[in-house]
Amino acid sequence: MRDHFIERLIDLALDEDLGSAGDVTSNALLSPSAFGRAELWAKEEMTLSGLGVFAAVFKRLDASVEFDFALADGDATLKKQRVAKVEGPLKVLLAGERTALNLVQRLSGIATMTASAVQQIASVKGTKLKILDTRKTTPGLRGLSKLAVLHGGGTNHRVGLFDGVLIKDNHIAAVGGSIREALRRAKQNAPRLVKIEIEVTSIAQLEEAIECGADIVMLDNMDDAQVVKAVQVADGRCELEVSGGVTLERLPVLAKLGVDYVSMGALTHSARAMDLSLEILPPRVKPRR
Amino acid sequence: MRDHFIERLIDLALDEDLGSAGDVTSNALLSPSAFGRAELWAKEEMTLSGLGVFAAVFKRLDASVEFDFALADGDATLKKQRVAKVEGPLKVLLAGERTALNLVQRLSGIATMTASAVQQIASVKGTKLKILDTRKTTPGLRGLSKLAVLHGGGTNHRVGLFDGVLIKDNHIAAVGGSIREALRRAKQNAPRLVKIEIEVTSIAQLEEAIECGADIVMLDNMDDAQVVKAVQVADGRCELEVSGGVTLERLPVLAKLGVDYVSMGALTHSARAMDLSLEILPPRVKPRR
Amino acid sequence: MRDHFIERLIDLALDEDLGSAGDVTSNALLSPSAFGRAELWAKEEMTLSGLGVFAAVFKRLDASVEFDFALADGDATLKKQRVAKVEGPLKVLLAGERTALNLVQRLSGIATMTASAVQQIASVKGTKLKILDTRKTTPGLRGLSKLAVLHGGGTNHRVGLFDGVLIKDNHIAAVGGSIREALRRAKQNAPRLVKIEIEVTSIAQLEEAIECGADIVMLDNMDDAQVVKAVQVADGRCELEVSGGVTLERLPVLAKLGVDYVSMGALTHSARAMDLSLEILPPRVKPRR
Amino acid sequence: MRDHFIERLIDLALDEDLGSAGDVTSNALLSPSAFGRAELWAKEEMTLSGLGVFAAVFKRLDASVEFDFALADGDATLKKQRVAKVEGPLKVLLAGERTALNLVQRLSGIATMTASAVQQIASVKGTKLKILDTRKTTPGLRGLSKLAVLHGGGTNHRVGLFDGVLIKDNHIAAVGGSIREALRRAKQNAPRLVKIEIEVTSIAQLEEAIECGADIVMLDNMDDAQVVKAVQVADGRCELEVSGGVTLERLPVLAKLGVDYVSMGALTHSARAMDLSLEILPPRVKPRR
Amino acid sequence: MRDHFIERLIDLALDEDLGSAGDVTSNALLSPSAFGRAELWAKEEMTLSGLGVFAAVFKRLDASVEFDFALADGDATLKKQRVAKVEGPLKVLLAGERTALNLVQRLSGIATMTASAVQQIASVKGTKLKILDTRKTTPGLRGLSKLAVLHGGGTNHRVGLFDGVLIKDNHIAAVGGSIREALRRAKQNAPRLVKIEIEVTSIAQLEEAIECGADIVMLDNMDDAQVVKAVQVADGRCELEVSGGVTLERLPVLAKLGVDYVSMGALTHSARAMDLSLEILPPRVKPRR
Amino acid sequence: MRDHFIERLIDLALDEDLGSAGDVTSNALLSPSAFGRAELWAKEEMTLSGLGVFAAVFKRLDASVEFDFALADGDATLKKQRVAKVEGPLKVLLAGERTALNLVQRLSGIATMTASAVQQIASVKGTKLKILDTRKTTPGLRGLSKLAVLHGGGTNHRVGLFDGVLIKDNHIAAVGGSIREALRRAKQNAPRLVKIEIEVTSIAQLEEAIECGADIVMLDNMDDAQVVKAVQVADGRCELEVSGGVTLERLPVLAKLGVDYVSMGALTHSARAMDLSLEILPPRVKPRR
Repeated sequence: MRDHFIERLIDLALDEDLGSAGDVTSNALLSPSAFGRAELWAKEEMTLSGLGVFAAVFKRLDASVEFDFALADGDATLKKQRVAKVEGPLKVLLAGERTALNLVQRLSGIATMTASAVQQIASVKGTKLKILDTRKTTPGLRGLSKLAVLHGGGTNHRVGLFDGVLIKDNHIAAVGGSIREALRRAKQNAPRLVKIEIEVTSIAQLEEAIECGADIVMLDNMDDAQVVKAVQVADGRCELEVSGGVTLERLPVLAKLGVDYVSMGALTHSARAMDLSLEILPPRVKPRR
Repeated sequence: MRDHFIERLIDLALDEDLGSAGDVTSNALLSPSAFGRAELWAKEEMTLSGLGVFAAVFKRLDASVEFDFALADGDATLKKQRVAKVEGPLKVLLAGERTALNLVQRLSGIATMTASAVQQIASVKGTKLKILDTRKTTPGLRGLSKLAVLHGGGTNHRVGLFDGVLIKDNHIAAVGGSIREALRRAKQNAPRLVKIEIEVTSIAQLEEAIECGADIVMLDNMDDAQVVKAVQVADGRCELEVSGGVTLERLPVLAKLGVDYVSMGALTHSARAMDLSLEILPPRVKPRR
Repeated sequence: MRDHFIERLIDLALDEDLGSAGDVTSNALLSPSAFGRAELWAKEEMTLSGLGVFAAVFKRLDASVEFDFALADGDATLKKQRVAKVEGPLKVLLAGERTALNLVQRLSGIATMTASAVQQIASVKGTKLKILDTRKTTPGLRGLSKLAVLHGGGTNHRVGLFDGVLIKDNHIAAVGGSIREALRRAKQNAPRLVKIEIEVTSIAQLEEAIECGADIVMLDNMDDAQVVKAVQVADGRCELEVSGGVTLERLPVLAKLGVDYVSMGALTHSARAMDLSLEILPPRVKPRR
Repeated sequence: MRDHFIERLIDLALDEDLGSAGDVTSNALLSPSAFGRAELWAKEEMTLSGLGVFAAVFKRLDASVEFDFALADGDATLKKQRVAKVEGPLKVLLAGERTALNLVQRLSGIATMTASAVQQIASVKGTKLKILDTRKTTPGLRGLSKLAVLHGGGTNHRVGLFDGVLIKDNHIAAVGGSIREALRRAKQNAPRLVKIEIEVTSIAQLEEAIECGADIVMLDNMDDAQVVKAVQVADGRCELEVSGGVTLERLPVLAKLGVDYVSMGALTHSARAMDLSLEILPPRVKPRR
Repeated sequence: MRDHFIERLIDLALDEDLGSAGDVTSNALLSPSAFGRAELWAKEEMTLSGLGVFAAVFKRLDASVEFDFALADGDATLKKQRVAKVEGPLKVLLAGERTALNLVQRLSGIATMTASAVQQIASVKGTKLKILDTRKTTPGLRGLSKLAVLHGGGTNHRVGLFDGVLIKDNHIAAVGGSIREALRRAKQNAPRLVKIEIEVTSIAQLEEAIECGADIVMLDNMDDAQVVKAVQVADGRCELEVSGGVTLERLPVLAKLGVDYVSMGALTHSARAMDLSLEILPPRVKPRR
Repeated sequence: MRDHFIERLIDLALDEDLGSAGDVTSNALLSPSAFGRAELWAKEEMTLSGLGVFAAVFKRLDASVEFDFALADGDATLKKQRVAKVEGPLKVLLAGERTALNLVQRLSGIATMTASAVQQIASVKGTKLKILDTRKTTPGLRGLSKLAVLHGGGTNHRVGLFDGVLIKDNHIAAVGGSIREALRRAKQNAPRLVKIEIEVTSIAQLEEAIECGADIVMLDNMDDAQVVKAVQVADGRCELEVSGGVTLERLPVLAKLGVDYVSMGALTHSARAMDLSLEILPPRVKPRR
């Protein structure tokens, strides 16, 4: 299904790379009619994401470009594995290459880091812990980043400011410092189909939040001992989310403590780009209609 | 000066975060007339970048938001240092917070990683080596990322496909594998005010490239010994750029070998986000005109 | 023929309904590959309008959606009648359903109300009265609303401020209260291919307007007796339009009085939505290429 | 706070009304430097909505237009009451008049109809019934229409497809007809901060929905007796929403039956436009800085 | 009054000139804080047009740029005359210079050529001949070009396809070659506030057109003798427009023949650019608030 | 390859010509289902340019329009020669006709004037002189105009402010009047893949520019004697460009003087439109799928 947000991102990305002058290298060297074949290769082990937008970049330049995908979003790759074949006008392949790669590399980076996190807790038998993303995504790539987290096996927190109430310290301060008052306003005024999550920094606040009807409570920067205490206090009356500088190493521990979620901003703001490359194949004759 | 590319990015980012429903948390909790003050804090040592677009995000939401910057793009911060004061409608501060932070955190990450790289070679007396970025930027953030590299003390490679000829292996293959032919076409057809760079993988190719008039030659994935040889061969007849998986650790060595540039994709595709936060101050009465 | 105004409206409508998070219900329940069939049904008697834009909404989401229309814009429906069959990806049908229905329901409402008005005067033998719309349309739907009036058998007044001079009380006041001066300026400065209409509130003003060369005179809020007088005075020297709170009931009377037009803002600003629904058919296997 | 969706709507509306030729009447009659004063008047009793966008239309044409509002969104007007004074270039007032009025008339229509509905149940002592809107809004006006419902005292259902799961008959059919299966998928896959509502047509389905954990159940086209039964069955285990062709007359009855919500599509799809007009005042000298 | 069409043109023009890399010359040479003063000079005699959009280009880049105009659109200049003073950030003046000049030079070219044409007939005593433009304008500059014709003393033909019926040979052919049938359809279906013009190539066709009620008849490629005959035949029953390759030299003759209009495509499609230049003044200290 | 800049230009051009009301003439006269055939004819000798965008205009209106080109961009036409056949919905052909012609006429004008200039120097044996364009293009048509110059046999100067450093008198003044300082800053700060050109007005300045490492020197408004002297002084140490009011007549002389380039603003700012027309063929039956 076409996504206007992604269309706007692709247009912006191609505009910033091509400008009004276009690809001066290809224009100088290549015939407009040259036909090209290329292959997308993963150059390291990774979890793929972004294959749809990878294709959409080329399609935006020329609808005749064709793709044959050997793998799909969410698939894990070998250290060196062909992901897709691409065919189309050679100048289009070269014009779209960098933009398409920049997207699939970044999104696969997010999926791969997410998969690593999920892997950390996979061996903890019976854990209900889920890995959440945050809104700390690269501007313009919100939807794509959220999808990459899913491809890596993670779970999405709210997508934007519009699909969930999350009361943070700033909001609590703004209503005079009272969790009770914040939750009272939220329950009265929040859209009826969204749940209410609130951030707390102490067990006392947690108790107040539960009492005032929070659906989910975010435990901000609590250490393991505090988290254990929080689980005891909550006793299933609300869901619990651990948040704040959580490292991969801490995940197995958290998985055993009985919290429901851990959110990790690094998944989307600090994942490194995966190594994928587009390799143009030597030209061969191709009969075209 | 207004930059339409950045305006489009900001609109896209705010649209994806706010949607048609807006910030349901603030709408539920806060009065539309509440006035807010906030501070932008660096929470670790870093080189700043993105303060302009940080402000532009809030200004887009409400032109009355005001800023007082204590530091500027390119400045290094302490471990904990206030960067700016912000004042304006509280709901605007909260609505723009995440988008503005996502930008300044990512861009400062680029500037900081660049500064680290520059630092690696700063102690090499008399080196002419410059740290270059690439086109491996996050789609939509090309111009901002290039600026962040400058703020970190780096040097920009071409900004897009339009402001320099860079002949890569794919182009050489496309003209039949001949460096000579590729450069012949480039010199004949390239825009007259852009220079010609070509990628080579061997000393033999380097010699051919120089002979055919390349302005700059990119040494792709060469080890130190090859680089030394390349510098000898080139003997000042062209500029030399080392490229391909260069780590920070290798930089001091390269700085002594006499090449002109080293390009590092990681600066823009894999820098982690810096830790900056926006702290809303407790409300106080403010007389407004 | 593609209409960029309608494209912008569809994009805006889908953006406001889908946001960056999309259809969370379908995403949770349905397979991306599920194929769907649906039928558009009229659930009451109406005159149809908006079938083109109904289809365009789905096409915008996925060009592969196919339509088989049993009826066309301008057709009258039975109390319960199938209007169209639709086939395509199930998630696309559900994502576009509400937006497409909102358009066809509103536009058919306009066409149906117009048809009622036209019906009121159809039995008046030999009348030349035509039912006009106004510029009182929902913002963003001007062109579609004007078309709906045509589908209902009505006649379009000017489409915008650009295709006809209509001098209202405000303009007359602005030139010092003189109809003569207003018409003098209009005849001197108006585009040469547009006609000049002027609003009057008395028979004396009508006489002045005719004398000064108005092509059409709008009789504002005149009762039947005044209208009769106006027709006598005009005596064919200009066209006459009755305007101002005209009800359906008054139309047969007006049709006998010899005026040329009656304009009714209610056609486009207060028509209720018609009852049409999209019914998804139970799934069946469909071989797709 | 600026809203990009509303900006796009205003641009579209002005583009369709002004085109590339502009207001040919004003251009023919008026001096570009003429200054104008106008007043917005309510011509019947109503609940106001849309004053912000009313002003924004003129501001888009010329930022120097100034407003002095005597009433605010949500206020009830007298039969004839001045709502605002407007000052600015006369040609700007005339160019924006129709678009601005079209918006405020429609939105006040929604607010007024909502207020009527709310009024119907206000006298029912102790009722918890709330009046909900639907997604049956005019395309392009979603956010404004939702706000108008709030101004009328109503409550918003979800704003779009993104902020709540609502499982309708079509979804149930698509998963094989099973409410259990539909809710199982929803609970497993739905975003964690949105609640789940499901539509049922029988008491048996209601029981199944509650048992499977629906947060809210929509009772589709049930008569009063069925609603009474549903309330007994639900017994507070979920919220109940009555939906389907509910008239104003039925509201007092429903208010006594103990359901939580009644949703009314007519509020946004069939409210008539309220009678408001912009009256240009006779010119007077105005000293301008 | 803001004109969205002109805004889109300015954005497009600045985007194509600045791209994502900006003005690399100014960036290399100038300080961002440098303040500049410049003067717009006419370097030959001309009739000015485009001063508004000239300013708007700079304002789009930076709202703080200020202008002091010595002359206005429609004014005639001396051979060398200062038109305006401009002040603002130096980099903004240099970034906008070329785009702003390209517009004012072209538009003044249109105004000047129009003024020449008007001058040709000014000495013909008592002539009613008016000089019309056509739709042969540079794409994107329709409104500005039409305005330039007015500034030169000419008269506008229709602005677009939307504000007047003009039946050309292609239309007549499409309805089977019959002028009668073409006019019958036009009178029946055309918008009621636009007039009907038809193109004829013979006196016989002219007679048929008049008889069938054409408001204006365009005499296509007729020589003077035919025009004389046409005026006699028309005898005031319709307006007459001469069209087709009319040169400036022929205008005085036509002015005596009694036709109403002559349309000249060259005014907008082939006027040469006027010589205007922006001269940056030597820097001086300027105290800024 | 799709070009977003051209798409924006086409949308703007069609919006300004069609507005929200469309082609009222065709709407009044023609059946929506009428099929049409047309031919594009050159009516004078010219060098063609713009055939791609000519087609794109119609395709934007309806993707089913088909073209059969007998000639290509860059081809010279006979005095009267068919350039293309076009087939599609008749209303689409008429709606796009003027916009498509306006583009191809203007662009062919640029190509033809360029070809004339190139022709002037073609007979000068052994000359290396190349004809350059400038940035004096019609706003919105930069890329298309630059392409037209290539079609005419000319050479492109930089496309925008982003792909080459050109230091003009204004820049020199801004750095205190020193060519040395200007070039020092440029060499230090300019993007490394763009060359540096500087404008000089005397032989002394030329010497300074060469000494400071300019890649290209623009000789501003120098007469033949000065140019001869400049060539002697430069002696191959830099490229030389003659600029400033150069007429076609002077070109053969310049071609003999040994300069590398002559730039001519008139190519893009003052070329007259070529005479091309679209002739609708009489209707015939065409079986369509």
